[in-house]
Amino acid sequence: MNIPNNVQIVDVGPRDGFQMEQVNIPTDLKVKVIDAISQSGVSKIEATSFVSASAVPQMSDAAEVMSRIRRLPNVQYTVLVPNRRGAELALEAEVDAVRIVICATETYNQRNVRMSIDSSLKATADIVKMMERSAVPVEVAIAVSFGCPFEGRVPEEKIVELAKRFSGMGIEEISIADTIGLGNPRQVKQMSARLQHELSDVRFSLHIHNTRGLGFANVLAGFSEGIDIFDASIGGLGGCPVVPSATGNIPTEDLVNMCDEMGIGTGVDVGKVMEASRLMQSFLNRRLPSHVLWSGTTSQVFKQACDAIQK
Amino acid sequence: MNIPNNVQIVDVGPRDGFQMEQVNIPTDLKVKVIDAISQSGVSKIEATSFVSASAVPQMSDAAEVMSRIRRLPNVQYTVLVPNRRGAELALEAEVDAVRIVICATETYNQRNVRMSIDSSLKATADIVKMMERSAVPVEVAIAVSFGCPFEGRVPEEKIVELAKRFSGMGIEEISIADTIGLGNPRQVKQMSARLQHELSDVRFSLHIHNTRGLGFANVLAGFSEGIDIFDASIGGLGGCPVVPSATGNIPTEDLVNMCDEMGIGTGVDVGKVMEASRLMQSFLNRRLPSHVLWSGTTSQVFKQACDAIQK
Repeated sequence: MNIPNNVQIVDVGPRDGFQMEQVNIPTDLKVKVIDAISQSGVSKIEATSFVSASAVPQMSDAAEVMSRIRRLPNVQYTVLVPNRRGAELALEAEVDAVRIVICATETYNQRNVRMSIDSSLKATADIVKMMERSAVPVEVAIAVSFGCPFEGRVPEEKIVELAKRFSGMGIEEISIADTIGLGNPRQVKQMSARLQHELSDVRFSLHIHNTRGLGFANVLAGFSEGIDIFDASIGGLGGCPVVPSATGNIPTEDLVNMCDEMGIGTGVDVGKVMEASRLMQSFLNRRLPSHVLWSGTTSQVFKQACDAIQK
Repeated sequence: MNIPNNVQIVDVGPRDGFQMEQVNIPTDLKVKVIDAISQSGVSKIEATSFVSASAVPQMSDAAEVMSRIRRLPNVQYTVLVPNRRGAELALEAEVDAVRIVICATETYNQRNVRMSIDSSLKATADIVKMMERSAVPVEVAIAVSFGCPFEGRVPEEKIVELAKRFSGMGIEEISIADTIGLGNPRQVKQMSARLQHELSDVRFSLHIHNTRGLGFANVLAGFSEGIDIFDASIGGLGGCPVVPSATGNIPTEDLVNMCDEMGIGTGVDVGKVMEASRLMQSFLNRRLPSHVLWSGTTSQVFKQACDAIQK
C-alpha cells in the first residue's frame, strides 16, 4: 500500500457545490467563502463556471466573483467552461486554468451538455486551440468514469480512449470523476494504474463523490497507485444535477484530516477549511455531510485529551 | 493491495446499535430485526447484552430476545457480557459465543465499566475459566485501540500486550475496535500486520466506526493485511455511550455493497440487510447514517440503467 508524501487538494465546492444549491447564494458570500478557502492553504480552487446564466442561474455572477475574490499568489483559481464563449470570458477574468467536463457515456453527456461525446471532443479541441494563444492551461474532467446511471458499467477502455484523445490535444492534466459515486477501490486502483501506465505524460487526478460511503476507500486506492491530486469540496457540498439521490463530493476537511493523520502533507490548515465550511453551513441552515465538522478532527480530540490530562 | 476472496460480516446493530437509542425498542421489534438479519445471510449477529438492567435498561430483555429469535443453524448468535453473572445468563440462553469488551486505556475502561484494566483482565480470566466447562467460546473486543478521547493516542504496544494476555487465556478471536473513529488507514494497516505477526494463532477482526468518514478506508487497510472479519451494524446504528459526538458503526449494507462491487464474497444479500435497516429506520423515524439505504446499491443503479436501456 503506497502512501504518498504529499497530495494536492483542489476545492471544487464553489463550483460543483454551489451550483447544486436551490437557493441563490449572494455574490458577497461566494467571495467570502472562496477567500476563506484561499486562506486555508488549499492551492487550487474551482471558483466558478462561465456557463450560460439561463442554464445555471447560480453561476451568473462568475465574472463578478472572479474580479472580487482576493487572489493569493500561491493559489490557482480555475473555472469550468462548457464552450469557446465560456473560455473567452474565463480569459477576460484572468483565470489560472480552465476545466472542461466531458462524460464517458453518450446518454450522460447528452443530459449534461446536450451534445454527443464527439461534439464535446470537437468543442474541447476548439477551446484548446483558442487557449493556445494564452498561457492558461486547459484541464479535462471525464465524468461518470466509474459507472453511469443511464448506461451502467463503463468499460475502462472507454476512459483510456478518451484520455488518449485529450492527451493528443496537448492536455496535461485529466481528472477521472466518479460523478455519482459508483466506483469501488478495486476499480479505482486498476483504472489509476492503467491510465498512468498508458499515458505517462499526463497528470491524473481523482474526483470522488461519497455517495455510497466509499469516498475515502477510493482515495486510498488512488494513493496506492501514486495518484496525488484529489478534488474535494468544503463541507462535502455537491451532488449531481442529473441524478437527484446523488450526494456530495468528499469533504475537504475530512480529506485533510485523513492526510494529517496518515502523515501526508497537504499544506492545508484543516481548521481554516472548517471556517469556510461553517460559513456555508450557517447560510444553508442544514447540517452539511462533512464528518469532522460534526465530530471534530482527530487531532482536536487528542488535543482535548492532552489538555484534560494536564489540568 | 491485498483483497480477500471472502470476508465474514458480524452485525452488531442489535447490541451496539440498540443500546445507544434513547427510546425503548419493543422486544417484538428487536426479535423481528434480528430475524431479518439472520435471513440476509449474515453469519454472526451480536444479538444482545447480558448486563445489569439498571446500567443499560435497553438490554433488560436480553433473555427474552434470545429465547424468541428464530435461530438459524448457519448463524452464530453472540452476546456481550460484562462479568461472570452475565456469562452464566448467556449460557442459560444457549448463545453461540460471548464477547467481553475491555478498553485499551485506564480512563476509558473506568468510564465504561468502572474497573481498572487489571480488574477487567481478572474478570475476563474468571469468565474464561467458567466458560471452559461449556463449548461456548469467549471473544474479546479491545475498545479505543486506535485512540482514546481521554488519553489521546494509544501506543500499538499496549494493544499487542493486551492481545497477548488474552491469547494466554486461550482466547482465539479478538476484535480490535476503533470505538470513536480515531483510526486512520496507515495505523490500521500497521496494527493489523503487527498483531497477526506476533500472535499468529489468534483471529483478529476489526470493529470500525465511521465517525470521521474513514470507515471504509480503514476496512480497505484491514483487507491489505488479510483481515477478513468485520463488525458492522444495520443502517449504521451505534455510537458511544461515553462520547456524545461519536457516530455509528460502518453500515452493514454499505460494507456488503463494497464487497459485492469488489468481488469479495460475504454470503449476504444486501437487499435483505436493507429490509432489516428499514424496520429500524421506520421505527426510529430518522434517516439512518447508511449510504446505500439512501442512494441505492451500486448494482441497483446499474440494473435500473439496464432495464431502461432494454425498454
